[in-house]
Amino acid sequence: MAAHIPGRHGGLPLQEKNKMEIKGFKFSAVEAAIKKPGRLDLALICSEVPAAVAAVFTTNKVKAAPVLLDEERVRNGSCRAVIVNSGNANACTGKQGMADAMETARLVAGRIEAAEDSILVASTGVIGVPLPMDRLRSAIPPLVDNLGRHTLDDVAKAIMTTDTFPKMEIRRGTAGGNGYTVAGIAKGAGMIMPNMATMLAFMVTDAAVDTAWLSNMFLEANDASFNIISVDGDTSTNDTALIMANGMAGNPPLREGSEGAAEFRQLVCEVLLSLAKQIVRDGEGATKFVEITIRGAASNADARRAALAVGNSLLVKTAFFGQDANWGRIAAAVGYSGAQVDQDLLEIRFDDVQMAKQGVFVGGDAEARGSEVLKRKEFKVIVDLHLGEGVSTVYTSDLSYDYVKINADYRT
Amino acid sequence: MAAHIPGRHGGLPLQEKNKMEIKGFKFSAVEAAIKKPGRLDLALICSEVPAAVAAVFTTNKVKAAPVLLDEERVRNGSCRAVIVNSGNANACTGKQGMADAMETARLVAGRIEAAEDSILVASTGVIGVPLPMDRLRSAIPPLVDNLGRHTLDDVAKAIMTTDTFPKMEIRRGTAGGNGYTVAGIAKGAGMIMPNMATMLAFMVTDAAVDTAWLSNMFLEANDASFNIISVDGDTSTNDTALIMANGMAGNPPLREGSEGAAEFRQLVCEVLLSLAKQIVRDGEGATKFVEITIRGAASNADARRAALAVGNSLLVKTAFFGQDANWGRIAAAVGYSGAQVDQDLLEIRFDDVQMAKQGVFVGGDAEARGSEVLKRKEFKVIVDLHLGEGVSTVYTSDLSYDYVKINADYRT
Repeated sequence: MAAHIPGRHGGLPLQEKNKMEIKGFKFSAVEAAIKKPGRLDLALICSEVPAAVAAVFTTNKVKAAPVLLDEERVRNGSCRAVIVNSGNANACTGKQGMADAMETARLVAGRIEAAEDSILVASTGVIGVPLPMDRLRSAIPPLVDNLGRHTLDDVAKAIMTTDTFPKMEIRRGTAGGNGYTVAGIAKGAGMIMPNMATMLAFMVTDAAVDTAWLSNMFLEANDASFNIISVDGDTSTNDTALIMANGMAGNPPLREGSEGAAEFRQLVCEVLLSLAKQIVRDGEGATKFVEITIRGAASNADARRAALAVGNSLLVKTAFFGQDANWGRIAAAVGYSGAQVDQDLLEIRFDDVQMAKQGVFVGGDAEARGSEVLKRKEFKVIVDLHLGEGVSTVYTSDLSYDYVKINADYRT
Repeated sequence: MAAHIPGRHGGLPLQEKNKMEIKGFKFSAVEAAIKKPGRLDLALICSEVPAAVAAVFTTNKVKAAPVLLDEERVRNGSCRAVIVNSGNANACTGKQGMADAMETARLVAGRIEAAEDSILVASTGVIGVPLPMDRLRSAIPPLVDNLGRHTLDDVAKAIMTTDTFPKMEIRRGTAGGNGYTVAGIAKGAGMIMPNMATMLAFMVTDAAVDTAWLSNMFLEANDASFNIISVDGDTSTNDTALIMANGMAGNPPLREGSEGAAEFRQLVCEVLLSLAKQIVRDGEGATKFVEITIRGAASNADARRAALAVGNSLLVKTAFFGQDANWGRIAAAVGYSGAQVDQDLLEIRFDDVQMAKQGVFVGGDAEARGSEVLKRKEFKVIVDLHLGEGVSTVYTSDLSYDYVKINADYRT
């Protein structure tokens, strides 16, 4: 059975989260002086035994060195550890970048006595600057020595860049009578869009899971979580979402159709969706959390297309920030989304306030009541296309002055 | 021969522009109180004789009533006049919206004694609010009566919404020994993106032009001008670019391959490109004008895809605003554009300063010199993919606090 307590970050209080044990996993986080002094910027997630691994990487053709390395190594189907740094993306760094990523992995491998290719590497931060390897070389020994002294939450802190809070979620489940834990952390506040943006997510579970099924299931779960959020429409060079399943819970390996597989899949989706929503809540400069649902579309694909167009529209997002019930901009975004649309059937609501019906403004006090809805920190936009059964939901934030400020000043 | 004097708005001083006669065209602009008091918001462009007409409309499936009406009427191949209002888009206004657009045209037709379907209508402004027809009914008689008392520049002023300056361009040419004029005006500061955004453009010429050729040529000219600029990536419900050619210059009608056709095509392209650049310069909140050229692409289509991805990227545009020589964001945008990219061949320059070569930072003082370039009001970004012969240029602006402010407060 799944323990599921909704809350601020969609789950348990942090203290409770950190008390949950994920058998055979140890964590560590240190200051390696890659970011400003006083901030954790290097972390290690380590399994005592080889863990089944699956991952999803950026679709960008300019890929950071650690992404290229991990794509290769994840094909082995198992790994022992992942080392992550923030403050430097090790992207657009050429041969040196790849050599640095490999050396980083090698240094960890030597210290935990694992095969070099069982260590994965992830980086996030500024593009085009070589990794400060001298600092990494000094920091890796204490990083490994500290394994077990830190919690997953510390790792979540160490991978933050412009994030304002660490993102974590955890669930408990059972399979074959064995209790197991599924936990995840993520970072990524800007540059978020479908198909993986500058976003790192790491999941760990002590459940035993068949590698092939883990891969398929994880890809689907990503599609239903990270690929339905939007902050700014850019796609980065470094995105990585990864799950390690080390089997220490002792259950018979979960696979398609096996007992407990549906529950496990559900928990993985819940954790990923919770992390995805936390990322939207922490969107750079965001002041609103908006759920956009398109229903009545000709197909689910059409609904998704329309929902993403609304969620990505700068004009819609600036109207949210301005608390302006400008439903016309939503109609326009739906219109250019590529989805089948009959403008004379269009219905638009903000929470429980209907704004437009059959493509035109409903009149009366809808404007005033719609504006009241937009003053909320969280609200829903519901568009009914009245064409079919297709439905899709996307989560987005508003676009504020601070988004511009954060990104104009990022490197200064 | 084409008179072509480059300048602030790519052409002649306004005084000179207004002195140029476009035979058989008359203009008028009035205050109809659709916008705030004291601002021109209703204009009329009228030809003494039926003019060959061609137009390009928004690709948005939610189309404003005037767009639906004009799409139909342009098929006639000729028209007498176009009436334009700003302050109200007459979009998402249902059957009433269409009735209002038709009545507007009918009122003009009656007063200038023309066929009702020879009058086109265009609107720009807020979506979802019915046109204030009482004000239009009162304003149309003086509008028609004033024909000839105003200049094309007054029309350019009357169609402005968030624009900060009117946009106009003019050229002289000759065909068959007859001199003719090609002039154009445009509006549209935000919501600009390829494939027509909230943008209105009206061109008039006294040259005689074959209607079929005019249509083809005008479509191509739009693709090489308005479709290579980007401000914010939204596509509106109202976009219309329209050309009227009334033949009063007396030349033998221009058609594909005829004497003077190449020059005419060139002048139309110059006027449209000048208007397009003026729109970018007046991008909502823009402080920079940036020319992005991709060369060495596998194809021209790939080059265009990459150039548009860079020009549309919020992260790139906020970095421009921050005067941050963050070439990594440009590399990332090229990488996700869909164009064929080999990251190890990527070369990036800001004006004459090379930032990246073979996919990595060139080092030295490039950072400081690159930052100096980004302090300029205008600069070029040149990316060489080193894969082929494909080349494409796109014009864009930066994204500033003021973009957010303008669009958050648009209706308040």
